[in-house]
Amino acid sequence: MTQVLGIDVGGTKMAVGIVDDSGEVTHSSIVPTPAQGTADDMWQALTSACDQTLDKAGHPELAGVGIGSAGPMVWPAGEVSPVNIPAWRGFPLRTQVQEKFPDLDVRIHNDAIAMTAAEHWVGAGRGYANVLGMVVSTGVGGGLVADNHLINGGLGNAGHIGHIVVDPNGPECRCGGRGCLEAIARGPGTVQWAVNQGWLPGDRPADGRSLAEDANAGDEVAIAAFTRAGEAVGIALASCAALLDLDIAIIGGGMVQSGDLLMVPMQEAFDRHAGLGFARRMKIVTVGLEQEAGIVGAASLVLQGENYWSPPGEQGDRIIA
Amino acid sequence: MTQVLGIDVGGTKMAVGIVDDSGEVTHSSIVPTPAQGTADDMWQALTSACDQTLDKAGHPELAGVGIGSAGPMVWPAGEVSPVNIPAWRGFPLRTQVQEKFPDLDVRIHNDAIAMTAAEHWVGAGRGYANVLGMVVSTGVGGGLVADNHLINGGLGNAGHIGHIVVDPNGPECRCGGRGCLEAIARGPGTVQWAVNQGWLPGDRPADGRSLAEDANAGDEVAIAAFTRAGEAVGIALASCAALLDLDIAIIGGGMVQSGDLLMVPMQEAFDRHAGLGFARRMKIVTVGLEQEAGIVGAASLVLQGENYWSPPGEQGDRIIA
Repeated sequence: MTQVLGIDVGGTKMAVGIVDDSGEVTHSSIVPTPAQGTADDMWQALTSACDQTLDKAGHPELAGVGIGSAGPMVWPAGEVSPVNIPAWRGFPLRTQVQEKFPDLDVRIHNDAIAMTAAEHWVGAGRGYANVLGMVVSTGVGGGLVADNHLINGGLGNAGHIGHIVVDPNGPECRCGGRGCLEAIARGPGTVQWAVNQGWLPGDRPADGRSLAEDANAGDEVAIAAFTRAGEAVGIALASCAALLDLDIAIIGGGMVQSGDLLMVPMQEAFDRHAGLGFARRMKIVTVGLEQEAGIVGAASLVLQGENYWSPPGEQGDRIIA
Repeated sequence: MTQVLGIDVGGTKMAVGIVDDSGEVTHSSIVPTPAQGTADDMWQALTSACDQTLDKAGHPELAGVGIGSAGPMVWPAGEVSPVNIPAWRGFPLRTQVQEKFPDLDVRIHNDAIAMTAAEHWVGAGRGYANVLGMVVSTGVGGGLVADNHLINGGLGNAGHIGHIVVDPNGPECRCGGRGCLEAIARGPGTVQWAVNQGWLPGDRPADGRSLAEDANAGDEVAIAAFTRAGEAVGIALASCAALLDLDIAIIGGGMVQSGDLLMVPMQEAFDRHAGLGFARRMKIVTVGLEQEAGIVGAASLVLQGENYWSPPGEQGDRIIA
């Protein structure tokens, strides 16, 4: 049995696990991300989680290490500058992990891309050849699989569905553009829109959970906020379906936990804007994997390298331990 | 030297040529499309053009036949129903050509996809790994190359940039959707918009050429019509650049002959909406190949099969004669 160490670096938590070649996580550790600490605090927390996991697992022979990290990053060099981890700006994550595991093949990709690989491999996308994975959360990210192979794009950034333009006269986006999906549909953007329309969270935090509570209780502004976000996602999905002739789109992230509040207007907008038969056939589903998707996706860069690992000049073959 | 017969089926003309493995067209024939005739009129005109070309070339040994056809089509079966050729509805073009050339490998793809392959192989996209080709004409079509390989999508329809949503409140599209790029930017749509705004072609035809004449003479409505179309193209390109991390977009088709009238507002809209660095780096250029791009692209499905031919279950290796 081949085993790989999967590392998932996010703004809130870091997860590390041993993943086997069936996509099962056999041992794992999760630690909070010391996002406000120093670069070294971050690194120490991550290496501790790695060591803990390896101790738990009895230090098995590994076939490699896969990393999924919040971006942006310079890829495949793996210099990461995660938006929500100010301590890491141009941090040489791949190189550092390689130095910790000098005898192992170390691979890295954006966390939304790793999630997409995991869902394609053993999640809701299993058996489909053309897959969009997306995360609607603090930001809106994604990844793409075409003909069963991960699409990297020229600099490893393919899949950025959050910056598809869904309304050319829409709000400014933090990317510098205007009317991007992310500017409209990301959680904080949706909450802010509701606040601007007069929604009051009371003594609860002004977040997506409070907004969903009120929407479920019938608050019209809260319902409209989710409708606005869902429609934006549906429009972007219609564009992706036409452009890429996809079989399935798989959606995860905190905003999806609001369920039908988001998903119903999303599907309606998709149906309204996707006219061509091949585009309309695209299924839209929620993620099949739980929290461990990040670890599994990271490990899949090694365990399923022939499908998910093809940077210019690097080998993408499956590694057999 | 390997030689392949390339066939380009369009609504106005059909072109057939012998293409060698450097992408040169050595002999060719062009005939008008009898689009209002019967299915058999169409087929006779096409086979005559094939025979003429083979006669001119002295019946060389061929390594295969490649076809680029106006769509839609069922792919890779090659049953075509070109929008502007009413006589062909579900016409088994690939099978018919296969019966005419029983000993040869016959391959087929959408004409905008074939054009993209040609531009990537020997045109403006040479040397780039991640390429969008697009045609802005009676319709708006396209094709995609990622990591030097053509993307097919699940049913062979990837590249339909004409049905990216650029304005969710925009005009209805003939696809059944709303606000698609094609609904706004296609030539007839642009002319119609100008007519609706009061533009009068006088005794000239109400077409893109007349509209461009007046725009170049300073007619404000005519200028605005091209600006509107160009902005729509620029917005769609910004979405594609973000989603696919492209190196270059290559634009052809009749509307591009209007030059800066279209291209300047297009680039401005792209710059306004593409915020992320990796997206902003995408170059936008006009096609490098002339009319023969269709023939070359069709032949490239055989001559460069390892890059451009990968239908499910069919071999994509290069064919050596």
